[in-house]
Amino acid sequence: MKSLDTQDLQQMSSRARAHLVNALSGVKGLHLLGTRSPDGVDNLAVFNSVIHIGANPAMLGVLFRPLTVRRDSYQNLQATGEFTLNMVTSQMVDAAHATSAKWPEDQSEFVATGLTPWRSDTMNAPYVAESPIRIGLRLLDEQVIRCNDTRLVIGEVTEVWLPEGVPEDDGWIRLDTLDVMSVAGLDAYYQPKLMVRKAYAKPEVGASKRELLRP
Amino acid sequence: MKSLDTQDLQQMSSRARAHLVNALSGVKGLHLLGTRSPDGVDNLAVFNSVIHIGANPAMLGVLFRPLTVRRDSYQNLQATGEFTLNMVTSQMVDAAHATSAKWPEDQSEFVATGLTPWRSDTMNAPYVAESPIRIGLRLLDEQVIRCNDTRLVIGEVTEVWLPEGVPEDDGWIRLDTLDVMSVAGLDAYYQPKLMVRKAYAKPEVGASKRELLRP
Repeated sequence: MKSLDTQDLQQMSSRARAHLVNALSGVKGLHLLGTRSPDGVDNLAVFNSVIHIGANPAMLGVLFRPLTVRRDSYQNLQATGEFTLNMVTSQMVDAAHATSAKWPEDQSEFVATGLTPWRSDTMNAPYVAESPIRIGLRLLDEQVIRCNDTRLVIGEVTEVWLPEGVPEDDGWIRLDTLDVMSVAGLDAYYQPKLMVRKAYAKPEVGASKRELLRP
Repeated sequence: MKSLDTQDLQQMSSRARAHLVNALSGVKGLHLLGTRSPDGVDNLAVFNSVIHIGANPAMLGVLFRPLTVRRDSYQNLQATGEFTLNMVTSQMVDAAHATSAKWPEDQSEFVATGLTPWRSDTMNAPYVAESPIRIGLRLLDEQVIRCNDTRLVIGEVTEVWLPEGVPEDDGWIRLDTLDVMSVAGLDAYYQPKLMVRKAYAKPEVGASKRELLRP
């Protein structure tokens, strides 16, 4: 093992440091965030910063970079109060990655990337038709993260679209059979494969070996 | 596809809803958080809520559940101002999962689970010797998330311990060759496999196909 300290990190190029530090949070969930502008332009942007906030009520958070450049998704969800999160499959990776390019404001990323907008009866924000798990949210709160002016946008889940047979009876969703992808660093896409589903952890001898499922 | 709305979610059992909603953020990073109490008891707890806050300075956040029950990790990092995050390999999954059991306060999870504490010269908080990527942090800030009293604890990365040859020259860390695991839902552990590393996204025809690496 070798170590890097604060000085070593500071002496790296900005790009190399970004790669390294982005990897430290590990492999992350990968979502396409859908919004519709007040003018009716559908926007789609890839995020690796969706976090679980709470289950009751169901709330997810999305961390946005500081607002120093144009952030169409952020402006739209502020203006309309709603957004969607759509999980990304292996077939959707090229298109999802392409949404991170600097497209003109009046250019819908759906048209640019070939993904298909899909709308439910209750949301104006677009879902992605190719996505197996689509989540509709209404804007609930926003908190500025003081240390670097990032913004944690919190949405309440108002609807979830799922394939038939999902979730299982106990609420569990097996993500690898749905071909759901994940991401680490700035540009590396990983396919998750279920290793084990563990039984509830208890402080007893042997309890740590108990499993619910090992494919 | 079928949909679940707010009412459907509310009518689920608390456990089933927790499984479902925890899956919606996708496959997440998996870390063991190490602290040392002022009395010298090493504490280790598994977290799936580590997020990237910023790269310069390097900052990671950890979302803690509301403080309605004993939270040794939280108390320790508040008291000492430091903590470690250690990535989990497939060999460490049973032990990592077992740290979530309700062990007595004076029982070190290292002893309970068989993981090995390891200390650097600069940190009192314990690292996990079995972990291939070990991150040392000093407590920088804490923000209460208003909507449900969870707490976002933010640490500045003061050192990173890595195997020789990691990261690559451009700062990138390939996580699957280090056998780093991820987690989704409350109890499902996934092994990530690199599908593709993409080139920087640009708004040009064909740019979305460009790849840096496909194993």
